[in-house]
Amino acid sequence: ERNYKVTLLPGDGIGPEIMDVAVNVMRAVGAREGIKFEFTEKLLGGAALDATGVPLPDDTLAACRASHAVFLAAIGGYKWDSNPPHLKPETGILGLRAGLGVFANLRPAVVLPQLADASTLKREIAEGVDIMIIRELTGGIYFGKPRGFGVNESGHRCAYNNMVYSTPEIDRIARVGFETARKRQGPLCSVDKANILEVSQLWRERVTAIGKEEYPDVQLSHMYVDNAAMQLVRNPKQFDTIVTGNLFGDILSDISAQLTGSIGMLPSSSISESGPGLFEPVHGSAPDIAGKDKANPLAQVLSAAFLLKYGLGETKAADLIEAAVSTALDKGYRTGDLMSSGKTLVGCKKMGEILLESL
Amino acid sequence: ERNYKVTLLPGDGIGPEIMDVAVNVMRAVGAREGIKFEFTEKLLGGAALDATGVPLPDDTLAACRASHAVFLAAIGGYKWDSNPPHLKPETGILGLRAGLGVFANLRPAVVLPQLADASTLKREIAEGVDIMIIRELTGGIYFGKPRGFGVNESGHRCAYNNMVYSTPEIDRIARVGFETARKRQGPLCSVDKANILEVSQLWRERVTAIGKEEYPDVQLSHMYVDNAAMQLVRNPKQFDTIVTGNLFGDILSDISAQLTGSIGMLPSSSISESGPGLFEPVHGSAPDIAGKDKANPLAQVLSAAFLLKYGLGETKAADLIEAAVSTALDKGYRTGDLMSSGKTLVGCKKMGEILLESL
Ligand SMILES: CC(C)[C@H](C(=O)O)[C@@H](O)C(=O)O
Ligand SMILES: CC(C)[C@H](C(=O)O)[C@@H](O)C(=O)O
Repeated sequence: ERNYKVTLLPGDGIGPEIMDVAVNVMRAVGAREGIKFEFTEKLLGGAALDATGVPLPDDTLAACRASHAVFLAAIGGYKWDSNPPHLKPETGILGLRAGLGVFANLRPAVVLPQLADASTLKREIAEGVDIMIIRELTGGIYFGKPRGFGVNESGHRCAYNNMVYSTPEIDRIARVGFETARKRQGPLCSVDKANILEVSQLWRERVTAIGKEEYPDVQLSHMYVDNAAMQLVRNPKQFDTIVTGNLFGDILSDISAQLTGSIGMLPSSSISESGPGLFEPVHGSAPDIAGKDKANPLAQVLSAAFLLKYGLGETKAADLIEAAVSTALDKGYRTGDLMSSGKTLVGCKKMGEILLESL
Repeated sequence: ERNYKVTLLPGDGIGPEIMDVAVNVMRAVGAREGIKFEFTEKLLGGAALDATGVPLPDDTLAACRASHAVFLAAIGGYKWDSNPPHLKPETGILGLRAGLGVFANLRPAVVLPQLADASTLKREIAEGVDIMIIRELTGGIYFGKPRGFGVNESGHRCAYNNMVYSTPEIDRIARVGFETARKRQGPLCSVDKANILEVSQLWRERVTAIGKEEYPDVQLSHMYVDNAAMQLVRNPKQFDTIVTGNLFGDILSDISAQLTGSIGMLPSSSISESGPGLFEPVHGSAPDIAGKDKANPLAQVLSAAFLLKYGLGETKAADLIEAAVSTALDKGYRTGDLMSSGKTLVGCKKMGEILLESL
């Protein structure tokens, strides 16, 4: 029997509700496949701020580091929005990413055949979209120093952040990009702003070199970030795998997620060089519908499948979960975010029960 | 009789072709309205590199500064893409923006009723979109120092760019945002990444303060850039006027332009505190169709209308041009980029003739 320690971070808003559903699904699949999970629940984000005064308590990070995988729902809410920087829920997430060294964030944007009409794009543009965005997650302008507030030469207040990348940081994320593209048997598009930024010029130079030296079989192209954002809207099917920096990846992955029209369906995984991975849905904490049993738990459930597949190597269990989600959709069950005529509207809990039946 | 000096910068690719059409239209309108233009043509971008070895010759900047308005087509092309930074066509544009002090770039994204089907968005999402993006154009990470290449503490090569804004820089672009929103009688949305970046925290603080003190009548909201990119795709009609920094504005204005499906129709204007404004289409130099009489000259022609209206205060002449464009579309004339069944396909030159007839 395989035994895995998994740290649960339900976080804020709809986090606890969708986490509940996903953990039940994991337990059921585990029972069937002879996998035992040792779940430890910890505080992060607003929940941690309220209980302990900090967004990332030490024992949360310690528990995460000591586990085989970290399972996060979502953090943040209006309540903490005007907190000072070091007391924002987001600061907890940044600390967690850095603390775990999860430098590569994989965000798929797939238009499921059952949901092709959910996109705001015309059907013929959306249908068949299947993009994997690899976002660098522990560097760039999110973490660059120097940063802060100051006074400029003219004596005026100013504030600044440094977008910085080093060669090893670029090389390792480029490798994740190339490996992913190779596995998907598709081309890799690296996104930067090399016509303006030196940091992008180094990025482009290194990605090109890694491609030539180590992945001559993978087709590589480069695109400026403004054009990439535009091309995602114009013709998303031209993309297969995209690799980019932290800030550009933040923006492009949100566009891609939105293109699918079903952001409530998208999981993500963040991986490190050797430690546990971090698995979470692409969507946020949706404070406006929290506690109302209205949330779509499927992205959280599909994140559990990612955790099993990419975090623990339990491919079979992951496949079972993905099949159960597909079955539930085929049967016409939809939460409010994806409801359309002829389908059956269900709440978060009920969707969980349907998944357990489908398993 | 009014007499204006206008510097023409046809630039690269399709630039000269579309400039030709627009200048003819200006001459015709000028003749009718008693406006005399003194046009001086100068080199910029790749054309300047080829002829003089630099992307922004001194006499180009001097001529621009000495004119009432600067009229630019587009620059850049594959030919110069691998040039070193100081010899890129783009460096010429940055020098021109800085040299003219055009800190505010106004980019409208309007879905014209005649072209609502051109969008990749579903008709009900695209129809009626009318957004004005105000992008800060002479600050932020495009111009921030320190910038360049170096070696970090671990001895690795690195490269960096500084995203920096000072209080006066934010205040003056915020005012352009509020003034524009007030004129449009719509709300203003300021876009930043204040949950992560200090530079955005100062941005948000100042925009909020300017709003409270000087524009209490304008409704102000704030949005993170990743969410804004997503919301533009999800429901663009929620936006009226957007104000944001240089890099975020570069990305968001390209998304918005693409949403309309007719980027070949969009003009833009860049204004300074007191000197001449810079007027140009939103689209690029399209080197692949250059010299083939296939380009859509309408964005360039509508940029001439912007030049007349916002640069010279010649509202009547501007209205005449906009009406001529509308008439040409109503009559069903389309260049290749906007062609659809039942319309009449015309080339760049022919579209110019049709406009002169419609005037
Ligand atoms: C919550 C926020 C800090 C975060 C980010 O900017 O990385 C989010 O937008 C994301 O994409 O995961
Ligand atoms: C050509 C390039 C330097 C420019 C920019 O990034 O500002 C372009 O993308 C634009 O938006 O005008």
